[in-house]
Amino acid sequence: VVVLDISVSLDGYVAGPNATLDEPLGENGELLHEWIFGLASWREAHGLEGGERGADDDVIREWVHVPGAVVMGRRMFSGGAGPWDADPKANGWWGDRPPFDVPVFVISHHAREPLTLGATKFTFVNGVEAALAEARRAAGDRPVQISGGAAVVQQALRAGLLDRMRLHLVPVLLGGGVPLFEGLDSRSLTLERVRSSGAVAHLEYAVS
Amino acid sequence: VVVLDISVSLDGYVAGPNATLDEPLGENGELLHEWIFGLASWREAHGLEGGERGADDDVIREWVHVPGAVVMGRRMFSGGAGPWDADPKANGWWGDRPPFDVPVFVISHHAREPLTLGATKFTFVNGVEAALAEARRAAGDRPVQISGGAAVVQQALRAGLLDRMRLHLVPVLLGGGVPLFEGLDSRSLTLERVRSSGAVAHLEYAVS
Repeated sequence: VVVLDISVSLDGYVAGPNATLDEPLGENGELLHEWIFGLASWREAHGLEGGERGADDDVIREWVHVPGAVVMGRRMFSGGAGPWDADPKANGWWGDRPPFDVPVFVISHHAREPLTLGATKFTFVNGVEAALAEARRAAGDRPVQISGGAAVVQQALRAGLLDRMRLHLVPVLLGGGVPLFEGLDSRSLTLERVRSSGAVAHLEYAVS
Repeated sequence: VVVLDISVSLDGYVAGPNATLDEPLGENGELLHEWIFGLASWREAHGLEGGERGADDDVIREWVHVPGAVVMGRRMFSGGAGPWDADPKANGWWGDRPPFDVPVFVISHHAREPLTLGATKFTFVNGVEAALAEARRAAGDRPVQISGGAAVVQQALRAGLLDRMRLHLVPVLLGGGVPLFEGLDSRSLTLERVRSSGAVAHLEYAVS
């Protein structure tokens, strides 16, 4: 099973407008992720104590602990593009102890040896289909999580490789930026679960 | 209080692509509204018996009975544009017995005498602000409902005239069409209520 977990604005963006290397989430893009940082399971995954419990935390606990492998786009890994030796964040922006602790497959046209940081091994793979195939093998019986960006999601949807979508709908309008859904064929999905802590609406869909 | 009630696709459209006079909701746009037709309160408002109860029906019952006046754009009234004598649906596409039964204010640059159909009186007003002012007077203590289209919603949001948004998020991707939110300033809202029948997610926001 391949699952998408992604935070999205009410107007459908996964990053704000005018993203730069210094502000990779775009203008106000950090508003999409603020709901996460005070949660107990997020803090725990970063070696911190305390934090809130509840529906938001349940969502993050699954996000952190359930997947057996993660697939992400190059920009989500480092914010950069092009050859690795010209990327100022070639080791990613996730720090020395990235919060994954499962194999992560980063999609890039540029070949590179695997990189291990903390308990997370990053493997660099050319193309969504190949990345998902490797991730499935690494995950065993556990789900594979796609965590963005938008281009990866759209490619997986078009290729029929996405089974479930968990959209974390943040009550903010960004007014522009990177749309999650763009240039897709019309199709129906099935709403399977709705959860909310009162701030963010967590919507889980089966992609038929 | 001015409330928006609108059905929107998962990719943020309130109508599909390539709308025409014959297919005013655009390609697959009817998928946005199918959830409504089998509900008891909708059938009741159209003089029919039976139908389903539950969360969807609760939403529609409020949609139909709570507002004291309704504001809508010209295209939502007739699908047309320009002078009324050139509009093939000049009396609207809502039939002889429109489902409103409260005063409806239709925004149009083109002056026109009021039109009464069944228990609904349509009044034609130039501009969102004037329409909302007249609707507030007509509604008395009851809320004013904006029911679309997207341009009216965006104008009301920009002018600070919208107090609440009730988005009925339909589990369909349309792949294109008329976006509900476009060209707006970044802002935060407050999620106040989440309801679901299992198919559509009904999300209610306060616009601060």
